[in-house]
Amino acid sequence: MPPHPTIALDAMGGDIGPAVVVAAAEIARVRYPELHFQFFGDEKAIASELDHWPKLQTVTTVIHTDEVVLGTDKPSQALRRSRTSSMGLALNAVKEGAASAAVSAGNTGALMAMAVFALRTLPGIDRPALASLLPTLRAESVMLDLGANTQCTATHLVEFAVMGAAIARTMLGQRRPRVALLNIGVEEMKGTEPLRDAAAQLRASPDLPLEFIGFVEGDQISSGDIDVIVTDGFSGNIALKTAEGTAKLIAGLLKNAFQSSLWTKIGYIFAQAGMQALRDHLDPNNHNGAVFLGLNGIVVKSHGGANAVGFASAIGMARDLVMDNLAERIAQDIALVQAIPAAEALSVGGR
Amino acid sequence: MPPHPTIALDAMGGDIGPAVVVAAAEIARVRYPELHFQFFGDEKAIASELDHWPKLQTVTTVIHTDEVVLGTDKPSQALRRSRTSSMGLALNAVKEGAASAAVSAGNTGALMAMAVFALRTLPGIDRPALASLLPTLRAESVMLDLGANTQCTATHLVEFAVMGAAIARTMLGQRRPRVALLNIGVEEMKGTEPLRDAAAQLRASPDLPLEFIGFVEGDQISSGDIDVIVTDGFSGNIALKTAEGTAKLIAGLLKNAFQSSLWTKIGYIFAQAGMQALRDHLDPNNHNGAVFLGLNGIVVKSHGGANAVGFASAIGMARDLVMDNLAERIAQDIALVQAIPAAEALSVGGR
Repeated sequence: MPPHPTIALDAMGGDIGPAVVVAAAEIARVRYPELHFQFFGDEKAIASELDHWPKLQTVTTVIHTDEVVLGTDKPSQALRRSRTSSMGLALNAVKEGAASAAVSAGNTGALMAMAVFALRTLPGIDRPALASLLPTLRAESVMLDLGANTQCTATHLVEFAVMGAAIARTMLGQRRPRVALLNIGVEEMKGTEPLRDAAAQLRASPDLPLEFIGFVEGDQISSGDIDVIVTDGFSGNIALKTAEGTAKLIAGLLKNAFQSSLWTKIGYIFAQAGMQALRDHLDPNNHNGAVFLGLNGIVVKSHGGANAVGFASAIGMARDLVMDNLAERIAQDIALVQAIPAAEALSVGGR
Repeated sequence: MPPHPTIALDAMGGDIGPAVVVAAAEIARVRYPELHFQFFGDEKAIASELDHWPKLQTVTTVIHTDEVVLGTDKPSQALRRSRTSSMGLALNAVKEGAASAAVSAGNTGALMAMAVFALRTLPGIDRPALASLLPTLRAESVMLDLGANTQCTATHLVEFAVMGAAIARTMLGQRRPRVALLNIGVEEMKGTEPLRDAAAQLRASPDLPLEFIGFVEGDQISSGDIDVIVTDGFSGNIALKTAEGTAKLIAGLLKNAFQSSLWTKIGYIFAQAGMQALRDHLDPNNHNGAVFLGLNGIVVKSHGGANAVGFASAIGMARDLVMDNLAERIAQDIALVQAIPAAEALSVGGR
């Protein structure tokens, strides 16, 4: 680990661009004085934001490019600008060792395609996955895959379990994270064949650095009883978005409830501090940062609508994963997966 | 429609049994004076509950059986007691025309298997589906399938769209319900092949009594912009349970927020009425009742943990669907589906 790990920042991604990304880097600089930063994007726009933060300038380089991957670009279009766009250049800096991690708030599909193209998957990893932290009643949990892989085999799910556990050790500080497969029931015979096969393989692998819990249903995702929830990208995306929608629904109802009468409005004035704590706990900016797992390098995706605090959380996630040598640890753990017997050799329930 | 439609009630299903089911029937009798009831289960236990409600006794018959389908029974075990258990006898009453609908709070998988066995699917329906009402910011929406069919073809999804629209016309009073397919993005090329094919077929079918919106993501389920959300049973179950879990998470955080200081506790006292309205809007007892669609008869599943008000909602749902001739209307609409060109004949996006 270099004494001053460098984080490559795509300054042009997200809804706002350089203003948010530069302000976020300043927050991260104060939190993590060891970090250096590389900004990729419009030099003028970045420089005018850096003018506000003289100390940040001393640990920063700016690499100019006019080209930007748009939110509407298809992955195939974005790939054509791998070597010229701000997103592509940030990923390239990781590939060439100039930076230890890249962070972008740009187009997810494009970032995924370009990250795989630039960094390639780790040996033994079939498919990279997108993982994120979610708020729970206790603290946070890790969920993956969140949309990178629509359909998954048992092998993919087992790889996701191992990679998710590696993240949970770093981000949640759990030595032996509790890992579960998302399913429509907890009984062994429930769900699809890849799920049942993956469960059989994980049950047969006590040497993996995780505790396999079995199946959980959607209502357990936010319970805090599970550290890592493993699912295919289709179900993961549905679950994540449904949770967001439900939170928005209840926030709307709560607002109506507080505005329904003079009494409830007075109630809000008294309860304000508690409500703020609730909002903070659920604020996506405080859980921001999804990581592409299984690549030769660390790539973190920030929410496109994140503010500076949110983007700084994503930088913090990248920094923690760099300090913990995530990519190397995943490579080691995946080597253990190779030793798991194939599903056909195990007695799989429900067949 | 008979002047006094009879609802067959499995008195032994659910966590509590006769006490809840009989009290629920009394609530339903007051709301819908035209209804008659048949109770199936332990005669003594039912009679002792009926003692509280003399008026209910005048519109009620009790059919005794000792046998009960347990929550732990597999569908195959339950099927063996099709002709002897309280659940099986209630379904049989619908089959033989003695009742117009059956309501049970018992084991979902067993109820599904026994309902299909007793009532058979409507002509042109490949697979029955489980549909339910969900709270949204405006009112309610219908979602299906919620777990009856783990994997679905495009044809199944189209059938679900038509059946869901039929329910929405009755339950939401929408003449031309807005129907969408749940997906991981709104663009035409997103998602799985069955989803893309089903979308192409629905787009090519302007004669169906519904307005096809296209794809929606999970965060739109509770927006109130869509009347019917169509999905396979795996994703539907994940979405439903995730929404439940998120609501529970926020309720827990809200409780903590109100208890965090003296001020917030005072705030709660003032805001209490508003909070009660919020709780009522989200209370599953007020949205209780899932219906098995596509059968020759109406079968409503109540939540196993429902109270008398909740079970009465499920009876109300059964009554509304009977009065609206749901099964006949679905049979008519499904005839229109037969005229849709096969997916291969349509230009399907994303191929």
